[in-house]
Amino acid sequence: MSVDVVRHDNWGRWGPLDERGTLNLLTPERVTAALGRPRSGRTFSLGTTIGKRGIVSPSRNPTWHVTTTVEDPSTPGNGRAEDIVAFHTHAHTHIDGLAHSWFDGKIYNGFPAERAVGRGGSNLAGVEKYGPIIGTGLLLDVTIDRAPFGPGERVTARELDNAASRADIDPADADVLMIRVGWTELYWTDRRLYESGSPGLGPDAVEWLAGYDPAVIGMDTAAIEPLPPTKGVHPLAAHRRFLHELGTPLIESLALAEPAEAGVSSGLFIALPLPIDRGLGSPLAPVLVV
Amino acid sequence: MSVDVVRHDNWGRWGPLDERGTLNLLTPERVTAALGRPRSGRTFSLGTTIGKRGIVSPSRNPTWHVTTTVEDPSTPGNGRAEDIVAFHTHAHTHIDGLAHSWFDGKIYNGFPAERAVGRGGSNLAGVEKYGPIIGTGLLLDVTIDRAPFGPGERVTARELDNAASRADIDPADADVLMIRVGWTELYWTDRRLYESGSPGLGPDAVEWLAGYDPAVIGMDTAAIEPLPPTKGVHPLAAHRRFLHELGTPLIESLALAEPAEAGVSSGLFIALPLPIDRGLGSPLAPVLVV
Amino acid sequence: MSVDVVRHDNWGRWGPLDERGTLNLLTPERVTAALGRPRSGRTFSLGTTIGKRGIVSPSRNPTWHVTTTVEDPSTPGNGRAEDIVAFHTHAHTHIDGLAHSWFDGKIYNGFPAERAVGRGGSNLAGVEKYGPIIGTGLLLDVTIDRAPFGPGERVTARELDNAASRADIDPADADVLMIRVGWTELYWTDRRLYESGSPGLGPDAVEWLAGYDPAVIGMDTAAIEPLPPTKGVHPLAAHRRFLHELGTPLIESLALAEPAEAGVSSGLFIALPLPIDRGLGSPLAPVLVV
Amino acid sequence: MSVDVVRHDNWGRWGPLDERGTLNLLTPERVTAALGRPRSGRTFSLGTTIGKRGIVSPSRNPTWHVTTTVEDPSTPGNGRAEDIVAFHTHAHTHIDGLAHSWFDGKIYNGFPAERAVGRGGSNLAGVEKYGPIIGTGLLLDVTIDRAPFGPGERVTARELDNAASRADIDPADADVLMIRVGWTELYWTDRRLYESGSPGLGPDAVEWLAGYDPAVIGMDTAAIEPLPPTKGVHPLAAHRRFLHELGTPLIESLALAEPAEAGVSSGLFIALPLPIDRGLGSPLAPVLVV
Repeated sequence: MSVDVVRHDNWGRWGPLDERGTLNLLTPERVTAALGRPRSGRTFSLGTTIGKRGIVSPSRNPTWHVTTTVEDPSTPGNGRAEDIVAFHTHAHTHIDGLAHSWFDGKIYNGFPAERAVGRGGSNLAGVEKYGPIIGTGLLLDVTIDRAPFGPGERVTARELDNAASRADIDPADADVLMIRVGWTELYWTDRRLYESGSPGLGPDAVEWLAGYDPAVIGMDTAAIEPLPPTKGVHPLAAHRRFLHELGTPLIESLALAEPAEAGVSSGLFIALPLPIDRGLGSPLAPVLVV
Repeated sequence: MSVDVVRHDNWGRWGPLDERGTLNLLTPERVTAALGRPRSGRTFSLGTTIGKRGIVSPSRNPTWHVTTTVEDPSTPGNGRAEDIVAFHTHAHTHIDGLAHSWFDGKIYNGFPAERAVGRGGSNLAGVEKYGPIIGTGLLLDVTIDRAPFGPGERVTARELDNAASRADIDPADADVLMIRVGWTELYWTDRRLYESGSPGLGPDAVEWLAGYDPAVIGMDTAAIEPLPPTKGVHPLAAHRRFLHELGTPLIESLALAEPAEAGVSSGLFIALPLPIDRGLGSPLAPVLVV
Repeated sequence: MSVDVVRHDNWGRWGPLDERGTLNLLTPERVTAALGRPRSGRTFSLGTTIGKRGIVSPSRNPTWHVTTTVEDPSTPGNGRAEDIVAFHTHAHTHIDGLAHSWFDGKIYNGFPAERAVGRGGSNLAGVEKYGPIIGTGLLLDVTIDRAPFGPGERVTARELDNAASRADIDPADADVLMIRVGWTELYWTDRRLYESGSPGLGPDAVEWLAGYDPAVIGMDTAAIEPLPPTKGVHPLAAHRRFLHELGTPLIESLALAEPAEAGVSSGLFIALPLPIDRGLGSPLAPVLVV
Repeated sequence: MSVDVVRHDNWGRWGPLDERGTLNLLTPERVTAALGRPRSGRTFSLGTTIGKRGIVSPSRNPTWHVTTTVEDPSTPGNGRAEDIVAFHTHAHTHIDGLAHSWFDGKIYNGFPAERAVGRGGSNLAGVEKYGPIIGTGLLLDVTIDRAPFGPGERVTARELDNAASRADIDPADADVLMIRVGWTELYWTDRRLYESGSPGLGPDAVEWLAGYDPAVIGMDTAAIEPLPPTKGVHPLAAHRRFLHELGTPLIESLALAEPAEAGVSSGLFIALPLPIDRGLGSPLAPVLVV
């Protein structure tokens, strides 16, 4: 397997009005191919808890969970309880909308940022345009070569190559490429380390992934990018490449420990973004079925 | 096909500590069987919009969607936008948690309500226990026999029988039974009518459905129950039967018009509840793949 | 009484680091003078309801009010209830922070907007710097000369002059100048008219008010400015003049009908902004004591 | 000065429909008397910061503060920023509504709790009924006799007596009695100690205060009650006595260090509860003017 560093610039690839980017690659054929993969029906949950203990950066607000209870006064012992939640769509396990980041005044497909994003949200390329994500998932576990990863460290193309050579399918056959560096779990086991930064994708890893023309990229960090940023590299280089140039949605803060520890490297990947009207992102509870 | 009115009381069926009810029926075998159904890969979204226009009862609060924008001051033209959302988990298309309703001081499986539900949410049978829902879905469109339905009107067992006879699979082969009365769409086309009440399941329809021992029940109304309630029938009779006695999750406010109008009656049903910690419900963006 | 159109530009007036603008005028001497005004102790509330029925523009989110109830399980009949609220600080009766609006890249006192306002709020001139507002209030009721006011209509200097001549104190002796056009009440009596626009201050009225060097300006409209804007006049001309150039806080959506109908034109004005950390505004429940 | 332990039970005192309790004592005469007290016009803020750093118990949700920014695309350099806040009304410096707690199925004035408090809030004795609070405040600083106070420790009647004897006015001449134990400041200086419990009023201190028939009670702790509770004393004894029996609002988490350290013991007290419709409490930014 060799590193394929063909540059894919997807502006216009699905027409000048396209708002879904590489999700267009998830054709009915790819969906049915992915649905045909599972043998055992075993299902791994790749989403993290939503609530007071949920992942959120210190610069945002902790997720609210409020319980309301109503007793039926006419029938003692009968009642009901409900809840309200309030959260940042870029907290927890989540997917970035294509209008989340802009560069040089433009989002994916060349839409002017000032037209795409306004006070009421994303007028163009909103997260409600994504629709269901069903495809073949490949889990690239780079912790086998290097663990633990530390803040600011970069996954390399070579490490992805090694991880791919250990997997049971070829990256070219996958729709959703997921990279595991073992970071999400630290949120609950070593908050101090977790909040001190993050490993991320190095420039050659970004190109390695882009070379396979994936529909979706996922990772078990909150930002995909190394934090602190690498000197001489744009701090949002991966966002620029994937969201802006390629129109490839990013899924962040995936929980990948369980499938990785079970030796699973591929399967049916399903994620159902909430149809948040004009949304810039959505919480996600993805699964991998094998 | 005949109406099977065997009473299933599922307390203890999966042990005294079970918190998932009939979702236990979704075994890996049922999952793989369901995954094998789709032929075309065509996917229908059964979830409704989340945001200011989202479905919510007047007694709750309209969903909040707030957009935050940050321009990068050092690089004009670069920036990012995010959003926060706040909503009732029992607004929009959603799934009821098993601790949502209690009767005679108890929730499903006999757990005392005062122990199951507290200030912080559901200590037992929380929605985060559900996990992914993957199974065979059957869409019972009763609008073919009677349309339009009006507030307080009841779906009957006979109508379900007729709908089932028109479907391409047997209810016994389905995991998720969905009933369509054509109500969800009215939220945007006739708000006054929508808020004046709701059609619901009549007592014999409840037993008809229960007789098939489904994993999940779904409907295109916000409450499953007829509103105003039928004289002489408990206003929460369906909740009592499904959530409380049978441990069968209810999905409310489904959007079923599109598959129904496409003549689809069955397929792969997928819903991924958000793992809201100690949650009483979750918004949902379910799909039906055919 | 003549119109005094001296231009007050207050940048630097209280030093280059000042963040409180004309609230500096509320010296202990002015406070004690104001406290000495009331004769009867009768108190008028000038704030509007906060909750689902509260004033909010359609472009913002309706205020949330959620009640949580906890029964004490060990002592039947004992319990407690609390609430949570969520709202825009620029909804309801509220005060604008000095960092609310910027022009030519600057807020009041010449602070650069990009330094004054960031993701976490107002780093400079935040509403928590205001402190209590205690002074002599003058109510200028211009509805006596012209009623009803309509959307886009402008209060004139002449009308303010007339209103002042009917009042029992001179504008020069007041700290808080309040203009009544009869608009706030329409929110509950004629929502359609209310949301179709708003009367506001015309350019000469702005200068008339500025000429008296007030500590605070208040009005019974949500924006102070005429909506739709007057042709040839900046749509935020009053914000520019008061917040930006003069550092004069604006109180919007005051409820002035009750004192006006009681024939009250002056008294002790008190408003206690919430010390919202780095806030851009605050809800307010001001009073006028006579 | 002697301890006056007359039991005041105020149900019916202001009629069977009264919803304001001892705030009825703040007659226009008391208001004007209070307004006449200040000599210097110096004003102390007794409210604590509202925002991410604001006081909130761990069982509630941290206050949200979200900033929204809109650049005017047609005029570079022009823009505006606003904020939204979400908080528990029983966080920060706040006033308890009279429907906050019930005992034996009843709130103040004998209103049945099930009628007074529902899903939408307080149908009776809501915080919006309070209106402005203007009266003579007395600050009883008991830290002079005993400091520091620790969790579970109780202020005694003797200590209040001593504090009163050091003050410049008689408790009988005050409307608002405030007790300082030095606790609020610990929230920012020693969070661990702060959250380990709280000093509170002992039973004889409660009666000492009640004996003066105050309009309002305030304290610099979050619960007024000692935490952990005193053996043999109802954990909500002070709430029962003041809110339930006497209809006396409680103000919690006052910031009293500044006036106390300035040697101030009395003055004009002003607090303006937000008119939260059917509210169970309100944040507060009270002041003491001397």
